[in-house]
Amino acid sequence: MTKIILIIADGLGDRPIQEFGYKTPLESANKPILNQMAKEGITGLMHTIERGMRPGSDTAHLLIFGYPYKEYYSGRGVFEVLGIGMDLRPGDVAFRGNLATVENGIITDRRAGSMESYEVIPETMTVQIGDVTFILKPSVLHRVGVIMRGKGITSNILDLDPHKVGVAPRKKIAIESDIDSKRTEDILNKFSDYMADYLSKHPANLKRKSEGKPNSNYLLLRGAGQHMYVQPIHEKYNLRTCCIAGGGLYKGLAKYVGMDIIDVPGANARINTDLNAKIKAAIEQSKKYDLVFVHIKFADSLAEVGDFQDKKDFLEKIDSSLAPLLETKDTIVFFSGDHSTPCKMQAHSGDPVPSLIWGPPEMICTDKVKEFGERPCQGGGLGHFNGLDIIQNLLNLSGKQKLIGA
Amino acid sequence: MTKIILIIADGLGDRPIQEFGYKTPLESANKPILNQMAKEGITGLMHTIERGMRPGSDTAHLLIFGYPYKEYYSGRGVFEVLGIGMDLRPGDVAFRGNLATVENGIITDRRAGSMESYEVIPETMTVQIGDVTFILKPSVLHRVGVIMRGKGITSNILDLDPHKVGVAPRKKIAIESDIDSKRTEDILNKFSDYMADYLSKHPANLKRKSEGKPNSNYLLLRGAGQHMYVQPIHEKYNLRTCCIAGGGLYKGLAKYVGMDIIDVPGANARINTDLNAKIKAAIEQSKKYDLVFVHIKFADSLAEVGDFQDKKDFLEKIDSSLAPLLETKDTIVFFSGDHSTPCKMQAHSGDPVPSLIWGPPEMICTDKVKEFGERPCQGGGLGHFNGLDIIQNLLNLSGKQKLIGA
Repeated sequence: MTKIILIIADGLGDRPIQEFGYKTPLESANKPILNQMAKEGITGLMHTIERGMRPGSDTAHLLIFGYPYKEYYSGRGVFEVLGIGMDLRPGDVAFRGNLATVENGIITDRRAGSMESYEVIPETMTVQIGDVTFILKPSVLHRVGVIMRGKGITSNILDLDPHKVGVAPRKKIAIESDIDSKRTEDILNKFSDYMADYLSKHPANLKRKSEGKPNSNYLLLRGAGQHMYVQPIHEKYNLRTCCIAGGGLYKGLAKYVGMDIIDVPGANARINTDLNAKIKAAIEQSKKYDLVFVHIKFADSLAEVGDFQDKKDFLEKIDSSLAPLLETKDTIVFFSGDHSTPCKMQAHSGDPVPSLIWGPPEMICTDKVKEFGERPCQGGGLGHFNGLDIIQNLLNLSGKQKLIGA
Repeated sequence: MTKIILIIADGLGDRPIQEFGYKTPLESANKPILNQMAKEGITGLMHTIERGMRPGSDTAHLLIFGYPYKEYYSGRGVFEVLGIGMDLRPGDVAFRGNLATVENGIITDRRAGSMESYEVIPETMTVQIGDVTFILKPSVLHRVGVIMRGKGITSNILDLDPHKVGVAPRKKIAIESDIDSKRTEDILNKFSDYMADYLSKHPANLKRKSEGKPNSNYLLLRGAGQHMYVQPIHEKYNLRTCCIAGGGLYKGLAKYVGMDIIDVPGANARINTDLNAKIKAAIEQSKKYDLVFVHIKFADSLAEVGDFQDKKDFLEKIDSSLAPLLETKDTIVFFSGDHSTPCKMQAHSGDPVPSLIWGPPEMICTDKVKEFGERPCQGGGLGHFNGLDIIQNLLNLSGKQKLIGA
């Protein structure tokens, strides 16, 4: 049975860089493996949502997994808490939490000097406000996963985090004037007050303060999302799938659609992530799973700070890690990004993402493209397509697509 | 902040002309500026509605402005009356009116010899039929803008104008049998009778008749459209926009979506229109507006009478007017048509329209196309796209697109 390895290099696409002679980081990178895959495969340009639309990482991945985001996206909190291994139930409202520093009611540091949240938040922590239970778990650095569980609550609210310093945390967060909105606002404000009291009295914070180190006395909440029932990918597409990712968000997104999560030592979503280990693990897991999803984060992180030289270098590192894939038999590789992140823009864009499908020569109608990149892929045999098309194409090529009609 | 100049050459696309060695008018035109823009930019083919669909000028422009026509198009009358500066209120039904000649109840001339309507219709004229008010304003030649204002009226009716001579004006215009349809039919017939009486007694018509000149004794109505609330483009897309156009319809369409109208002396939608003045004004206005829409009419008018040589010449005149755009910085130019108008067909067609985007070299991933035209653009990096994609692409390139997700 043909297996699928779906590799997403976050923020892959870019725009011409003057310093690279108006080539993009990918175009100017030395990438023999990707070029060989382009030559032996078929290429094209992906508009993850639709032409010109700027995808978030969450909406983009839902589409790539075959889940229309308008139907399945409620808010980022859901994927964050799933990504750190918290259990969500339908109806729960999930948040991304930031440890922060507030002085005289005004936020002075939204990340509390990036202090590690495990110093002040135990591995499992619950807070009861009336009949609503909050469940907290420390995440990376200053981040905390927060679940709000109870009846009559809603995720249709503003962020309590105003996303800037120099102002007070937001208290008026109800968008609608219905009972649930008002009740949710009231409970969240009480929870914030409770946490402010808890954090400012916490011995670890008092110690940090006495040492003149950044310390936290507030928990800012954002990205509220209400968890709903999602048909798992193995039911929806008859695919046994797993995810290999370093970043918590991507594990959360994968878990959301019912993928198994495979932990690979050294996969850490940072610049020194062990890409070789991830690709080897993907090949190994493809013996067991129909589709292995591999997420590679750091090209996007570099683009978001404008570091085009390091983005190019990291793409070269990705390229060399892909070499073992060329030895696989009866395996289809899809390689693309979730969206473009132009380095000069330092943000996600709606520019199309260069993409390729590589696989057994009897399965792929090759095109004339001999090189992988934004411009070469303009002439690719896949043409222009959308994120939702990927899963259907892969099902078709691997012989797992259902017949529509008779 | 990057600015956008969106130029629509009406009826731009065409089919091969035998007399041009099977080149199209655009392909055979001498067009160094458009070729340079194609070479330095990215090209493609636009299907304004969808592949093979024949767009009207009105539906095409709504799509190009980012308004799905199924939701926003009610009837041409709306854009006509807006285009001549009349004020519409939600619920008003607007018509295009033609002064006509009727003899013994039979239409003998649908345009009354193209006599000027201002001879018989004052600048502001109102007619009261029961509780419904009609507001009239003279337009170009025999044309009159007509607004019907009152309760219980509908635009879901047939044209009173049968669109041919030798028959009587249509009286049975109700499509549905509901009260509003019947009431609208009754009031419009009474209004037509009133206008027939008014026109046949008007001194200017009596004088023309005595001199043996064409004269009008009937006002034929068509293109009923009911005005609705339309979210202005600055709210919908966060773009400050203006329109530079000679033709009333295009000003009306622009006004309909909330664009400011900039009058440029010499812009008259005719063959001698001052294109240089329009492009210079566009560049000037782009200092103030995020998006400047420029409409150029006459290539379409020439194609509609089959004049391929003059269409080619006019396209060359357009080309030379575009030269100052090449000197702009931080400006994106989108150049296309609203639809194709093949000269040998003498009508709008569903053939795709050659299109290009030109802009700063760090913003645009160029393609291999070095020449602008129907065939060269087949290989363009934009591929095939729809009219609704334009505004999203331009928002993305200019950095004004919203993020979907997080």
